Amino acid sequence: MNENHRTRTVTWQDPLIGAQAALGMSGLVYLQALLAGDLPAPPIAHLLNFRLAEVSEGRAAFVCEPAEYHYNPIGMVHGGLISTLLDSAMGCAVQSTLPAGVGYTTAELHINFVRPLTHATGEIRCEAAIIHSGRRLATAEGRVFDRAGKLYGHGTTTCLILPADGG
Amino acid sequence: MNENHRTRTVTWQDPLIGAQAALGMSGLVYLQALLAGDLPAPPIAHLLNFRLAEVSEGRAAFVCEPAEYHYNPIGMVHGGLISTLLDSAMGCAVQSTLPAGVGYTTAELHINFVRPLTHATGEIRCEAAIIHSGRRLATAEGRVFDRAGKLYGHGTTTCLILPADGG
Amino acid sequence: MNENHRTRTVTWQDPLIGAQAALGMSGLVYLQALLAGDLPAPPIAHLLNFRLAEVSEGRAAFVCEPAEYHYNPIGMVHGGLISTLLDSAMGCAVQSTLPAGVGYTTAELHINFVRPLTHATGEIRCEAAIIHSGRRLATAEGRVFDRAGKLYGHGTTTCLILPADGG
Amino acid sequence: MNENHRTRTVTWQDPLIGAQAALGMSGLVYLQALLAGDLPAPPIAHLLNFRLAEVSEGRAAFVCEPAEYHYNPIGMVHGGLISTLLDSAMGCAVQSTLPAGVGYTTAELHINFVRPLTHATGEIRCEAAIIHSGRRLATAEGRVFDRAGKLYGHGTTTCLILPADGG
Repeated sequence: MNENHRTRTVTWQDPLIGAQAALGMSGLVYLQALLAGDLPAPPIAHLLNFRLAEVSEGRAAFVCEPAEYHYNPIGMVHGGLISTLLDSAMGCAVQSTLPAGVGYTTAELHINFVRPLTHATGEIRCEAAIIHSGRRLATAEGRVFDRAGKLYGHGTTTCLILPADGG
Repeated sequence: MNENHRTRTVTWQDPLIGAQAALGMSGLVYLQALLAGDLPAPPIAHLLNFRLAEVSEGRAAFVCEPAEYHYNPIGMVHGGLISTLLDSAMGCAVQSTLPAGVGYTTAELHINFVRPLTHATGEIRCEAAIIHSGRRLATAEGRVFDRAGKLYGHGTTTCLILPADGG
Repeated sequence: MNENHRTRTVTWQDPLIGAQAALGMSGLVYLQALLAGDLPAPPIAHLLNFRLAEVSEGRAAFVCEPAEYHYNPIGMVHGGLISTLLDSAMGCAVQSTLPAGVGYTTAELHINFVRPLTHATGEIRCEAAIIHSGRRLATAEGRVFDRAGKLYGHGTTTCLILPADGG
Repeated sequence: MNENHRTRTVTWQDPLIGAQAALGMSGLVYLQALLAGDLPAPPIAHLLNFRLAEVSEGRAAFVCEPAEYHYNPIGMVHGGLISTLLDSAMGCAVQSTLPAGVGYTTAELHINFVRPLTHATGEIRCEAAIIHSGRRLATAEGRVFDRAGKLYGHGTTTCLILPADGG
């Protein structure tokens, strides 16, 4: 292997453990268990190296350290990282408002990228909050900042709420 | 390590090799070199395991095999994967129309998720095409299908064109 | 009234006539009745001076002649006109696939403006087609062209499907 | 004319008066002149019956009274009204930050509709604020409320900044 090659090994657990545990918990209790480490983080969080940092009813925050393995072909972090963080944080902001037995899925995601991220940016924080909580749809917004409070991207989402009875 | 733990090792090359080579090439010539393997794929493509499959002027396609390591906490592939594929394919559709010395960056990304992806879905293909090619902005659209032609997601993007003179 | 003042008088009918008639018809039959003039056009179509020009299952087109009364403060047609046409055409593309008794509402609308419209543009046509038709959500896309086929804007939408039983 | 027909007469002034006056003013000074009535409101504001209610650097608010002439064919106010108000308010929030000689245009508009508007809703207020102010692009967000603070829709926009030198 030549000197330009870099390697990283990722380890994760069966994602169905957490998904099954989630079924009997309210969204907030489930996310608090994830935050406390009582349930395994999802594989994507290990792969992209981000983690839930805070959750309360209607709010969630994730943190991540941009690295070379996130890079796109034009010499900066791929927009997919900010998209994934915003989808996670906004989805969890919605999930934190749902009672046990009620699921959700992201129907639509809208992202604005306002500054490039590089490995020199340092830790970024993605904060999200619910905007509208309806019976069938919920909307949320999120922003991605560095430690100095500089904005890198922002987004909104529409989630479909999936009632316990499959309605 | 217990039986629920899984491991994957990712290898990539310095992303600045490709980024520097790109400077002297038109977008299409650069993407063709990437497709031919004459330039290294970007780190994010190794990390998420997707690859450029086709490129022509105004069009690009990527393929990917959804796997457990892409999973979110609710038991399916995280929306970040479809977002990353669409951002890549739509960005490359725009890039394929740019002369040497002209760069671009994604300003805005909009995604609709219409079906869940799992590791049972098999290979997916993300196809994108430019819609509008302007002096300062370009727009493109993309769709993600499985081998049977079933749709999983679709999107649009707005890219900012960065002229050689920094205009 | 000085010479800079211009006046236009708009006439419309009670919108509930059409809304009530729609309840017993499939979406396509209702839109065909609207196209044939058997049901009154909605007030907004009189106010902004646009009309349904074509409908088939999963597709709809509207036409409009941009005029000075559509202008914004920066000397061109307000983006609200393209937004309204796209929302109408994409919504009708979805509606044309729905059986009698099933309603819909626009949950989310995304528009790209690619060229300015003026009163010199002449008649524009907004064409829309359904992308995904699901049980709870449907998505559609649309584009706005002039008679020469030049593109002025494009969009996508997510509609919430409202089943007869209120599900 | 039968009893179901309703009529409204709209009056406006040449929109180029305001557009030309704007050229020599900063965005904020221009919007303050519009608010004070020293410059004519644009035709679209007369047509849809909305008006600028407040402006400061990076912020703008419009008000509007939803009426039957805004109705769509499904018995409520057309989504085009909320879209137009949000496009106006978010665009003015951006414009309020621009020096004299610098123009802008809306490149992209994203709207979520969260509740239906009817003529029984009463006056609504659309408030917008800038999120990111860059050299080439600016982004803003907006929300539409009734007098009780109930939310009807929200949105974001990306505006292209047009420097004095045509950059």
